[in-house]
Amino acid sequence: MPQKVRIALDAMGGDHGATVVVPGAAESLVRHPESEFILYGDSARIEPVLRQHPRLAAAARVVHTDIAVKMDEKPSQALRHGRWKSSIWLALDAVRKGEADVAVSAGNTGALMAMAKFNLKTLEGIERPAIAALWPTLRGESIVLDVGASIGADAEHLCDLAAMGSAMARVLFDIGRPTVGLLNIGVEEVKGLDEVRKAGQILRDQPVPYLEYVGFVEGDDIGKGTVDVVVTEGFAGNIALKTAEGTARQIGGYLRGAMNRTWKARLGYWLAREAFRALREKMDPARSNGGVFLGLNGIVIKSHGGADAEGFAAAVDLGYDMVRYELMVKIRQALARGRDHTAAAAAIGGAL
Amino acid sequence: MPQKVRIALDAMGGDHGATVVVPGAAESLVRHPESEFILYGDSARIEPVLRQHPRLAAAARVVHTDIAVKMDEKPSQALRHGRWKSSIWLALDAVRKGEADVAVSAGNTGALMAMAKFNLKTLEGIERPAIAALWPTLRGESIVLDVGASIGADAEHLCDLAAMGSAMARVLFDIGRPTVGLLNIGVEEVKGLDEVRKAGQILRDQPVPYLEYVGFVEGDDIGKGTVDVVVTEGFAGNIALKTAEGTARQIGGYLRGAMNRTWKARLGYWLAREAFRALREKMDPARSNGGVFLGLNGIVIKSHGGADAEGFAAAVDLGYDMVRYELMVKIRQALARGRDHTAAAAAIGGAL
Repeated sequence: MPQKVRIALDAMGGDHGATVVVPGAAESLVRHPESEFILYGDSARIEPVLRQHPRLAAAARVVHTDIAVKMDEKPSQALRHGRWKSSIWLALDAVRKGEADVAVSAGNTGALMAMAKFNLKTLEGIERPAIAALWPTLRGESIVLDVGASIGADAEHLCDLAAMGSAMARVLFDIGRPTVGLLNIGVEEVKGLDEVRKAGQILRDQPVPYLEYVGFVEGDDIGKGTVDVVVTEGFAGNIALKTAEGTARQIGGYLRGAMNRTWKARLGYWLAREAFRALREKMDPARSNGGVFLGLNGIVIKSHGGADAEGFAAAVDLGYDMVRYELMVKIRQALARGRDHTAAAAAIGGAL
Repeated sequence: MPQKVRIALDAMGGDHGATVVVPGAAESLVRHPESEFILYGDSARIEPVLRQHPRLAAAARVVHTDIAVKMDEKPSQALRHGRWKSSIWLALDAVRKGEADVAVSAGNTGALMAMAKFNLKTLEGIERPAIAALWPTLRGESIVLDVGASIGADAEHLCDLAAMGSAMARVLFDIGRPTVGLLNIGVEEVKGLDEVRKAGQILRDQPVPYLEYVGFVEGDDIGKGTVDVVVTEGFAGNIALKTAEGTARQIGGYLRGAMNRTWKARLGYWLAREAFRALREKMDPARSNGGVFLGLNGIVIKSHGGADAEGFAAAVDLGYDMVRYELMVKIRQALARGRDHTAAAAAIGGAL
């Protein structure tokens, strides 16, 4: 019988709080019956929903707190009033204390990241955590990081992102040596950013056993699925992610408009409705919901704030996989191999 | 009778050279009979195609050159062997000498930009040119710049981009005060890049008559059409553009797959084929083909290298509009108003 996976949930997070978190957890529990849950939040709100999910109720306990971080609170405000006692903090604290293997929250991203840094601290040698996103592609799924945890990155940080992203790819895609590309632009003579070029040279010169570095990729390679892991600093990564979301919504809008214009189109739409449903599911962010915070002493999953129960369940599943297939072990392996980067970066910095 | 618009064409540029450039010009001439063309390139290749388009032949002259810049040549190589004599250079030179009002090329972007800088020089006070792209949105079209001419931008350069982009929007969209947003990310406490914040403060504190600054926008605002002009530095801009193109192709791929899976879907597709055709046209890059180089002493249009005749005609149309509605005059107006930015940037830099 597999070992238990203990999941701490911020039951107050997201636009819908417990009404989404509880059924989402229940849905994930069906797929992973060996999960156990601790639900942090207002018990008066959690308990009534939990009673509708007796199977989850049997596998969960509720830890009451009155304090919840608002979705629009600044990280500094959230830290001031929510440290030690908010539902986000307590979920993270369960991971720190070893009472849970992973924390999942649909709450305020900035506050979650600030508290995670403050409480769990970054891994040795990692200065800044990153957010890794699962990105649906023509070939399946890829991991893109950093999608907005911090702005700017030197060559060393990019190499750390490559190591951590490939560890996550090993967990999720069950492959020994995920392919990794550095996001760059090919228009200029200089072929993009200095830091990206330096990072490319390091990854090329120092073979990392758990990672196959394939070179630079451009924005359109993400959707093609050219590589398993796309590495970039957080500003460009966040803009890429949001732009892709915007483009998908835009095309969805065009499509609805086009299919409504004539009776033939409407009839065609009706006949092909199953195909359209499949397409919608493929494009549905809920199916691959959840950003993974990487670089911390512990696993933290951020669900989309507007996720429904199905979407939140996907984020819980993601957390489950990260624990079950030992993300932390694989990250430490990858970083241990990559720890000579600092010296290499300095040497290359001088040579360029 | 309207004044002539004199268009210099690099007839060797792009994946298809004269076989696309000549029919493309002919197509644009039908829409704008007051255009005149100078075609630069190998006359042995141009003349046979031109003979098939007698109306264009009557409005065009051919200037022979053996030298063409290859699509994969580095800008420095292209400058070395193509300066003074390649088809790209001669087309740009016609603009410099006042023999043409605009140059259009589907050639190598890096080489075209390097030669344009070298030959036409940047406008007074502008250090680096930018490439502005027309971006189809849910509300129509927006202008996004810089999409890859240079990497990084200080607050002053971002303000110049805002001024030049809004001048282009006045030309294209026929509005007095285009709305302008600065591309940023909203995840962090600090709300994005320092330079972007500084630029925002300048644009807010100094009302510019031909521009309505509306604040920060995120990646998903581009497709929504939240503003007429989206301003960003070239690295993030290029990644946004390529990512959007990749996402559009990806969804197109999903759609084809979904519509082929069952006979009902195929029948539905057949019935709705007109709607799908309209959708394809809406998503077709050829319809809004052409990047505009801004910040130079002259108008230069870059067509997509893979464009067909219809796509190249769209780029020629774009060049025509830029001349007819006086892009250069409007850019100079916008920059003259904005020239106090340097002092303001220094003051704000101290205050932040």
